[in-house]
Amino acid sequence: MNPIFADLPTTVFEVMSALARETGAVNLGQGFPDDPGPADVRAKAAEAVMEGWNQYPPMMGLPELRGAIARHYARWQGLDLDPDTEIMVTSGATEALAGALMALIEPGDEVVLFEPMYDAYLPLVRRAGGVPRFVTLTPPHFRLTEEALAAAFSPRTKVVLLNNPLNPSATVFPDEDLALLAGFCERFDAVALCDEVWEHVVFDGRRHTPLMAFPGMRERTVKIGSAGKIFSLTGWKVGFVMAAPGLMRGLAKAHQFLTFTTPPNLQAAVAYGLGKEDSYYEGMRADFARARDRFADGLTGLGFRVLPSAGTYFLNLDIAPLGESDDVAFCERLVREHGVAAIPVSAFYAHRPVRTIVRFCFAKRDDTLDRALERLRGLA
Amino acid sequence: MNPIFADLPTTVFEVMSALARETGAVNLGQGFPDDPGPADVRAKAAEAVMEGWNQYPPMMGLPELRGAIARHYARWQGLDLDPDTEIMVTSGATEALAGALMALIEPGDEVVLFEPMYDAYLPLVRRAGGVPRFVTLTPPHFRLTEEALAAAFSPRTKVVLLNNPLNPSATVFPDEDLALLAGFCERFDAVALCDEVWEHVVFDGRRHTPLMAFPGMRERTVKIGSAGKIFSLTGWKVGFVMAAPGLMRGLAKAHQFLTFTTPPNLQAAVAYGLGKEDSYYEGMRADFARARDRFADGLTGLGFRVLPSAGTYFLNLDIAPLGESDDVAFCERLVREHGVAAIPVSAFYAHRPVRTIVRFCFAKRDDTLDRALERLRGLA
Ligand SMILES: CSCCC(=O)C(=O)O
Ligand SMILES: CSCCC(=O)C(=O)O
Repeated sequence: MNPIFADLPTTVFEVMSALARETGAVNLGQGFPDDPGPADVRAKAAEAVMEGWNQYPPMMGLPELRGAIARHYARWQGLDLDPDTEIMVTSGATEALAGALMALIEPGDEVVLFEPMYDAYLPLVRRAGGVPRFVTLTPPHFRLTEEALAAAFSPRTKVVLLNNPLNPSATVFPDEDLALLAGFCERFDAVALCDEVWEHVVFDGRRHTPLMAFPGMRERTVKIGSAGKIFSLTGWKVGFVMAAPGLMRGLAKAHQFLTFTTPPNLQAAVAYGLGKEDSYYEGMRADFARARDRFADGLTGLGFRVLPSAGTYFLNLDIAPLGESDDVAFCERLVREHGVAAIPVSAFYAHRPVRTIVRFCFAKRDDTLDRALERLRGLA
Repeated sequence: MNPIFADLPTTVFEVMSALARETGAVNLGQGFPDDPGPADVRAKAAEAVMEGWNQYPPMMGLPELRGAIARHYARWQGLDLDPDTEIMVTSGATEALAGALMALIEPGDEVVLFEPMYDAYLPLVRRAGGVPRFVTLTPPHFRLTEEALAAAFSPRTKVVLLNNPLNPSATVFPDEDLALLAGFCERFDAVALCDEVWEHVVFDGRRHTPLMAFPGMRERTVKIGSAGKIFSLTGWKVGFVMAAPGLMRGLAKAHQFLTFTTPPNLQAAVAYGLGKEDSYYEGMRADFARARDRFADGLTGLGFRVLPSAGTYFLNLDIAPLGESDDVAFCERLVREHGVAAIPVSAFYAHRPVRTIVRFCFAKRDDTLDRALERLRGLA
């Protein structure tokens, strides 16, 4: 067995969801909505399953989906992407990420990673042969600094892996930080691998700026998106990746060997969905913001200290004021004794973990959130 | 860019399908049926999309699908698999294979590969850090021999990758060969990674014997199957993997990082489908055998020399009697000038390729096969 994978625990998202299923806890751990997702998009998928093509689609994805992605990002972020050579559909953002790392990295290449980070990043970098260089971002603002980047980048830096908006901190990097990072990428000739799956989920009038849009970044950015996040259909596992043709050729090879293709029926439905008006996306953001506020106000009312959430489905609780210093033990008690599943944020650190923050997913129906609040009463 | 992936050409299956789409050729290249697949299985998927769960399913797969897989293989091949610890659902057999190699291999481990082999095997082995040891199987019988295995296995052998039934040769290894291979696995303490995606597609009363069923192999076999092949729904990308718990723990980690999960709606439909009676599978085999015979007889009638096909969707043409010695050039001409796409079998070799065999997929409607035969008239 290769120890890089074998020695790792099962991802905390799965562990907590399994515990929630077993114990009947309200599951605010793993990030998924409990809404069924847009009925019209699902109806398109059902129609494609019954009347459409169920055999191998083109390896790069259905042409209509690639076209829809190009139009969506042109309208929304002003990106100018060629659907034939710069867009590829993948079996979820995870496959896109795994494939990109396999394609971009040669053993010994350095990869800059920001902590806190999604738990798949580090093992994938290691399994691809990459040498991680960590930048630790600190609460409450999780900003990039010149000093930290200067300490992490080197002439051996091949890739920098950025998650923006950032899960689990629920922060959005300001343009100033992104410009700083872009400068480092240019100076060290590094590729920016941008996991921007949360880009549609930003609040309070914020706009997500893709790193690809910064001067000099168009040719050196691999941008990853997720239809599961856009349409609240996390189980569909339809992701996509955008990159200049020279990068895309390598990414396509990795995709060829990892999954080869993605179900054409689900792709067809996502192509349809991406044609929705801006008002759809604004409505989605407004709904999530309302859920965030309901849950944050509820927690505050119960005496908890919550951190701000500028984007993603997540809201963080500072458990230090409760006298807690072990987020894992706290989450264990929360799920087993109080019937609420959450995620200990220390799971997002490879070293020097923050131990006093616990993450809740608020992308739930009001009654789900209220039930969780009821169960948390008296804990603060 | 990592050269192991980047320097490879796009897979011949995709190239030929793209050429067929462009030129309007009859596509007998890439292996997929032109039948839409069982209507009742598709209806279940449509129902699950509309009324079922569209968020993350359990990482190992829906419990009902894992249960259905266990029951199917118990009834059909006498395998006794625990659905909770020995079965995992993947995003197609390709992901299962990629994940298994990533999980099993440490850099420097040797992997025994049999030529001809599916074109993803070698790059995946190399990217995982494995060192390939080739066994070349020779037409027309493609048998395993003691001598060839003895030359390939060594104390550094970690994995042997077997495809049975074998694509592209359309042969099924006799039990005698499998027993021989099992002996080598035991002697050298190697894991057998068995790509048995064609196991349901064997003809003329043959039965597929899983390598896992041989003495000593239960604990050292990773068996890969494909719902896309079983139900003629190749685009669904629902695969699965079976292995003893000690191996499965490592495989699950790789799956966690490669795709994490597989669409629950398609999983639910496959779970339903696997409940079908034996008569369904027999009917499927009979239909494919009829198509094989129609196409083989047609080719023979036109003066071509066809090789026997004991399993898979494929029939091979010997082009040596036509005075041809370059299968790639022949297939180029076939698709561009005669409007029929096929696969040059040399694409399945890493070295010492056979250059005079061309593979056709016969899993097509009668009129598709007849149209292809019409276009091949006069070529022999
Ligand atoms: C793959 S399960 C994790 C889902 C997610 O994005 C999260 O909860 O952070
Ligand atoms: C992934 S496309 C190849 C399909 C197939 O199994 C074949 O044609 O051999």
